[in-house]
Amino acid sequence: MASGGAKISLKAVKGTRDWAGPDLLLRDHVFETITNVFKLHGGTPLDTPVFELRDILAGKYGEEGRLIYNLEDQGGELCALRYDLTVPFARWLAMNNVQQIKRYQIAKVYRRDQPAIARGRMREFYQCDLDIAGVYDPMIPDAEILRIIVESFEALDQEIIIKLNHRKILDGIFAVAGVPADKIRPISSAVDKLDKEPWEAVKKEMVEQKGLPEGVADKIGQFVLNRGTLDEMIQFIKSDADLSANEEIKAGLVDMELLASYSKELNTFNSVSFDLSLARGLDYYTGLIFEVIQKPQDAKDKDGKKSSKNADASAVGSIAAGGRYDNLVGMYGKKQIPCVGISFGVDRIFTILKAKQGDKKPPSRQIDVYVMAFGGKEFDGLLLQRMSVARQLWEAGIRAEFSAKVKPRLPQQFKAAEEVPLAVILGQDELAEGKVRLKTLGSGKPGEEKDKDEKDQGILIKRDDLVEEVRKLLAANGATGTLPLR
Amino acid sequence: MASGGAKISLKAVKGTRDWAGPDLLLRDHVFETITNVFKLHGGTPLDTPVFELRDILAGKYGEEGRLIYNLEDQGGELCALRYDLTVPFARWLAMNNVQQIKRYQIAKVYRRDQPAIARGRMREFYQCDLDIAGVYDPMIPDAEILRIIVESFEALDQEIIIKLNHRKILDGIFAVAGVPADKIRPISSAVDKLDKEPWEAVKKEMVEQKGLPEGVADKIGQFVLNRGTLDEMIQFIKSDADLSANEEIKAGLVDMELLASYSKELNTFNSVSFDLSLARGLDYYTGLIFEVIQKPQDAKDKDGKKSSKNADASAVGSIAAGGRYDNLVGMYGKKQIPCVGISFGVDRIFTILKAKQGDKKPPSRQIDVYVMAFGGKEFDGLLLQRMSVARQLWEAGIRAEFSAKVKPRLPQQFKAAEEVPLAVILGQDELAEGKVRLKTLGSGKPGEEKDKDEKDQGILIKRDDLVEEVRKLLAANGATGTLPLR
Repeated sequence: MASGGAKISLKAVKGTRDWAGPDLLLRDHVFETITNVFKLHGGTPLDTPVFELRDILAGKYGEEGRLIYNLEDQGGELCALRYDLTVPFARWLAMNNVQQIKRYQIAKVYRRDQPAIARGRMREFYQCDLDIAGVYDPMIPDAEILRIIVESFEALDQEIIIKLNHRKILDGIFAVAGVPADKIRPISSAVDKLDKEPWEAVKKEMVEQKGLPEGVADKIGQFVLNRGTLDEMIQFIKSDADLSANEEIKAGLVDMELLASYSKELNTFNSVSFDLSLARGLDYYTGLIFEVIQKPQDAKDKDGKKSSKNADASAVGSIAAGGRYDNLVGMYGKKQIPCVGISFGVDRIFTILKAKQGDKKPPSRQIDVYVMAFGGKEFDGLLLQRMSVARQLWEAGIRAEFSAKVKPRLPQQFKAAEEVPLAVILGQDELAEGKVRLKTLGSGKPGEEKDKDEKDQGILIKRDDLVEEVRKLLAANGATGTLPLR
Repeated sequence: MASGGAKISLKAVKGTRDWAGPDLLLRDHVFETITNVFKLHGGTPLDTPVFELRDILAGKYGEEGRLIYNLEDQGGELCALRYDLTVPFARWLAMNNVQQIKRYQIAKVYRRDQPAIARGRMREFYQCDLDIAGVYDPMIPDAEILRIIVESFEALDQEIIIKLNHRKILDGIFAVAGVPADKIRPISSAVDKLDKEPWEAVKKEMVEQKGLPEGVADKIGQFVLNRGTLDEMIQFIKSDADLSANEEIKAGLVDMELLASYSKELNTFNSVSFDLSLARGLDYYTGLIFEVIQKPQDAKDKDGKKSSKNADASAVGSIAAGGRYDNLVGMYGKKQIPCVGISFGVDRIFTILKAKQGDKKPPSRQIDVYVMAFGGKEFDGLLLQRMSVARQLWEAGIRAEFSAKVKPRLPQQFKAAEEVPLAVILGQDELAEGKVRLKTLGSGKPGEEKDKDEKDQGILIKRDDLVEEVRKLLAANGATGTLPLR
């Protein structure tokens, strides 16, 4: 029994956490809710390894690539923990030559970022992704992804706004403003900070750090500080002679007009804010990009102009994000497979739901029947009989427990049964007659004494009828909501 | 869009694999089956990070510790991927001062071992653990763990044998045979190989590599090559004067007698083989240890003697294993919390079930309704109408898809609907009258032509009645087993 001792730092690694009890149940509720929406749309699951060859991840994440966790070189292949679920999906598509799929994956990803626990930003966190891969007519899968976002947050009872933009339009804007081609990605990632920082700070970064002429920066500002509905912003861009003459912007506008039309049919139009400042940091996006935020309480107006820009940024930041990436799969193989996808930031969504939930907590353990024994001075605990009755219940698929003590005291047993709806109570005399006592337990609030003097309560039944009687009572309890949800 | 290019090695890391389609559904079936048994016994879930501080893992795994994956030192804490789910659970117990819990966890663990894919041995693989922590009367939780094993494999329709032994009895045997105290663990791990290697090879390792006198080795052999039912082996040990005089063995026998009694009540007695050669490699076990193997087809006899020893080792090795570890939690904190647990080797179980399953594969995508359109020369594809009808179905919780083409051809649409039980077929004229066509699709075998000339088939219904009619047909189909399982 080597090392040991109490000098070990007893903690989960910085930026990670354990999930247990009601937190885990709430998180699984989020997973299940979103997964059900994915299934509604024909999604099929995928599970990839937690680490990939470093080469697979290299060069896919722009400036954020420095946050990748490497495995130590212990001989053999050089590996790194996955940074997202998109790149492994693209690798899988290329490897398996899959032409069309709606795949979803719920799994942990890893980023060596500065943790901000209160805001739900961790180094290990879950993503919950659906991506539609395949050659289809323009913007039809993109429109379905927006629908999936709206359905998911409706199912989670969250009011949201989908901020969206188009990489071609954004790149066109930079070109029209006069940004040199090699500066477009760095300038783009500066603009992306407009949800967290005021225009002045972003402009300063562009001019002082990235060496952009001030006039070019101001021109960018004239465009990217605008947002509104799809129809409003399409109109805004068309009415600007410079923008509407740019070829990239023209191509982007064709997409956005289709999207506007489809969004009306899919009833997502009013959940969308076309926001020219949205850039998204990742290198691999090629078309539509989007980010989901909580609907700000004070921003019911649709003026779409700058001033209150920062008010939008909710405390937890974006709670889902994604976009179209038509070239990523082709980087791994011979064949391009266009993709569009959404990634839900499940841990952030959890943080919001937990704050809303307050003190209402579901029980963390779900048992139908507690098997007890009770007797006088000569009481031997009836352990073998309790085991035998528990086995009878388990065989019938009824969730049952008993005290793992040879001679448990009755109050201990009732305490252990606090969250349990039913008790089977064994007594020497009743067992001799082939009978057991079955009792519906109270609300089970700790400290309540009313359950503690029994024998006179509950019903006496034949042991052979136990399973049947338990099922009856559980069904009756279930109907009145006493039974914990399964 | 940095790097890229086709020179990247396009693969999952050695010893890892992707899970998709029918494989993933089968694996999830294994998870769900075992989880249901855990819930039947009051299990509550836990999720810990994929990596831990290296100090937490150090010195817990004996010789196998060299297989731990380290994360690269990129500044900050030194981390390693978890090697099992037991040590993280012990760390969590100690951190949170939890006194009693039946916790389960299904998650991936990591070992830099030589992969053997055909036998289901991977570097990344799932474990599926239940552990009972807390101070209880002896062997009651241990007996419940054996019950959980038996129920799980019954639910998976697998015939198994639980090989078990007791660390105190094994250590007592080594003491009686004359093994020096400092050689007990190395000799123990040599003996553990008896399920894979013949006695002669193990003896050679003990004598030549570990420096044990030959006489001591032979004495060990006299004991450890015996196995049988709990009652038989208890009798065997008691009848040996040397063994029955040893204090450790006496203590172990008290446990085993309790276990024999409880196993009869819980109906697990006949699934158990008390096997004195079972040692288990890990350092942290202190009492009962066990390993589950497939029931050998040719070993219905109970002679329990050496000769056919190796025939027992099934091709995939142990499919579940565990034991009691009463001191592990105390290595992290001030308080000892005794634990006993079982870990299911889910990937190996999957390998067995898949081989059994043969060609019967469930559909990987589950859709209730495919929304199609059909028309003559002037046909515009009715995309917006297909979207609108799909939305109507989604809003009702009905799983629906449509072609992501503006003008899909009818055969394409029927091909896409191959595994789908129902089709809604839109036509310009019917839509003008507020009507749609609803059709039950055939068995959907690829190449079947009978579904391809429609218009005359299916029923014409009001669009307003669509959801209701779909629900009726799905219920009817479900009853005849046409609907894919949910």
